[in-house]
Amino acid sequence: MNRQARDKLRLRYEQELFERVLPFWEQHSLDLKYGGLFNNLDRDGTVYDTTKHMWLLARQVWMFSKLYRMVEPRQSWLSIAESGMTFLAKHALRPDGRVFFAVARNGQPIYQQRKIFSECFYALALAEYARAIDHTEHLEEAMRMVERIWDWAYDWSKVNRPSLSGAAPAQMLAVPLMLLHLIDEVMISTDCSSEINDCFKRIALHVHGNHTFEYVSPDGHRLDGPNGRLINPGHVIEAGWFLQKAATKVGDSSMIEFSRSMIRNSQSVGWDDVHGGLYYFVDAEGFSPVQLEWSMKLWWPHCEALYAHLLNYANTSDSKDLVSFQKIDDYVFSHFVDPEYGEWYGYCDREGRVTHRFKGGPYKGCFHVPRALLLCWQLLQHWPLSAD
Amino acid sequence: MNRQARDKLRLRYEQELFERVLPFWEQHSLDLKYGGLFNNLDRDGTVYDTTKHMWLLARQVWMFSKLYRMVEPRQSWLSIAESGMTFLAKHALRPDGRVFFAVARNGQPIYQQRKIFSECFYALALAEYARAIDHTEHLEEAMRMVERIWDWAYDWSKVNRPSLSGAAPAQMLAVPLMLLHLIDEVMISTDCSSEINDCFKRIALHVHGNHTFEYVSPDGHRLDGPNGRLINPGHVIEAGWFLQKAATKVGDSSMIEFSRSMIRNSQSVGWDDVHGGLYYFVDAEGFSPVQLEWSMKLWWPHCEALYAHLLNYANTSDSKDLVSFQKIDDYVFSHFVDPEYGEWYGYCDREGRVTHRFKGGPYKGCFHVPRALLLCWQLLQHWPLSAD
Repeated sequence: MNRQARDKLRLRYEQELFERVLPFWEQHSLDLKYGGLFNNLDRDGTVYDTTKHMWLLARQVWMFSKLYRMVEPRQSWLSIAESGMTFLAKHALRPDGRVFFAVARNGQPIYQQRKIFSECFYALALAEYARAIDHTEHLEEAMRMVERIWDWAYDWSKVNRPSLSGAAPAQMLAVPLMLLHLIDEVMISTDCSSEINDCFKRIALHVHGNHTFEYVSPDGHRLDGPNGRLINPGHVIEAGWFLQKAATKVGDSSMIEFSRSMIRNSQSVGWDDVHGGLYYFVDAEGFSPVQLEWSMKLWWPHCEALYAHLLNYANTSDSKDLVSFQKIDDYVFSHFVDPEYGEWYGYCDREGRVTHRFKGGPYKGCFHVPRALLLCWQLLQHWPLSAD
Repeated sequence: MNRQARDKLRLRYEQELFERVLPFWEQHSLDLKYGGLFNNLDRDGTVYDTTKHMWLLARQVWMFSKLYRMVEPRQSWLSIAESGMTFLAKHALRPDGRVFFAVARNGQPIYQQRKIFSECFYALALAEYARAIDHTEHLEEAMRMVERIWDWAYDWSKVNRPSLSGAAPAQMLAVPLMLLHLIDEVMISTDCSSEINDCFKRIALHVHGNHTFEYVSPDGHRLDGPNGRLINPGHVIEAGWFLQKAATKVGDSSMIEFSRSMIRNSQSVGWDDVHGGLYYFVDAEGFSPVQLEWSMKLWWPHCEALYAHLLNYANTSDSKDLVSFQKIDDYVFSHFVDPEYGEWYGYCDREGRVTHRFKGGPYKGCFHVPRALLLCWQLLQHWPLSAD
């Protein structure tokens, strides 16, 4: 990709991010009555459900704090982050450190998951907001949350998930991947090299040949049944770039190479050669995944793939990585974007038809789209000289 | 429908049931090593997951016990029921009356839902099996289970589902519908007229004009948000014929008429005029349902609709009911049936393409297909003279 093509791409991503994606959330997500942010927004921004999903609200706080700190200190961005963070601190956080998954418009709790991810996103939000406003105590609180999450991470009975004797012990890719991301984002002033190495080792346990499995036994063996054959290509691609970022920081070149292969292999495994787009789930042995939505094309794996392939290409100058990036970019801009109302659709069927018209829902907030656009835009701005 | 058409239809359903659906389960579901029944069967019957889902195993016990008692006392049918019931009693039932949702092949527990439906299907299985083998104590045990379920039914905190202050109090259509079915199937020698009337009243609370909502407030008011707009057409159609059966038994003619309208209105609300088939979920106000699978076409709503429309037609001779039946019958026989390996596919996308090749999974067992075929076949055999 020559400089001219890169400039053109950067401009396209810049316009998509600042003119069509961020304004959607700036205009429609603020709850002026009860504070905090709405996340269930229809195609045109209409609030179709006032339930507030805390993990998404935390992601939006993270996003606008990041923009304020990394792009420019716009007061309006900080206000959105502040409104979200105030609501989170008041209504999402329980005294024991657990975080509600969903609350009503006025903050009364609706649902508590028996997982750890709402807590993870709360810590990410708090840390990034603390750095945006330069607030040491908030950052320290976020770091204490990460330590608590670390204690829970591999034993979910601590967050009330019962573990019964017939369930094969399993490790989820999501856990070490998330912990690595928490270290990178929150534990910035702490030496976490042994924890980072632990995450590297645990992630590597999921990789068997060209396949990165979502679930393996705690010592890395394949599991029986559908869970043991399950691949979530978007997840693996996301894990790939998280891993690459961490490995680059600590200068682990073999882990960098490993993460590149994870991304490339998952693109091959996950791409639908007939209709285009990345499958949501794949069964490694060709059975039908039991998830009803397995063949759908979701926005977020494509967001992860945009940045991961561009990152690979920036560092390798390998045309195969550029081809993968362009494939995803073509799919995204011909399926998910909505020039009329902004933000992206989240869900297409296998053939690529939009199945859900809303832009925000219980699992889609202000996060993957702006994060991917921001990361790509930053990478294109600071393109490594070696890749020219 | 004249006698000749009826005979032809009866023969077609008879062949589908006895030659292509039941043999699939007879040949592939028995676990000869650990006892009990497999339910995760691929297109050709291959076991792709040895996990046993207790609510499906209970449904299969119910089905084969019913066949033994109502069709003919085939020893092989009773053996299947016995194998399933023995496994259930040994591995599914906890001392406190709760029933595991899923167990490993050898019976060790894997998962416990915080719902009441595994318990309901256990009671149905036990009662029908008791009647098949004429075992009074088993039947009494099933009746005691129903009494316990009755106590839990409208307060799921008794089955460990936390109820948080922000969640609007709601009643699920599934609950009174299931209780009515339990009365009909299990409490055969008991006077339950006040309980039946309670179920009638509670089901009626869900009906607002042409729409029957899945969730309403306990006093029948509409709820805010996606849950408050949600319609599950297959569920409503099933509720319709359960209600009609119970209302017929107690001679409540206005409730019979009410149930007919529920079935007819849900057919109109649920039918996809563009691609055919019944939607899985519909939002009454035209928003996109948040469920990713909302526009898919599932086997079971069509199974319920086959019998419900045929029942309406048998009792009304109204050609509109016959047209609805034929619409569903056409869709089923051109989409779900598999003449090569038997049983039916369970899942099509909106356009009607099969998305999952398996015949049995965590939510699809030996139940809706043979039940619908059996009920239709029986109805066609004992066609009301008034409908001729």
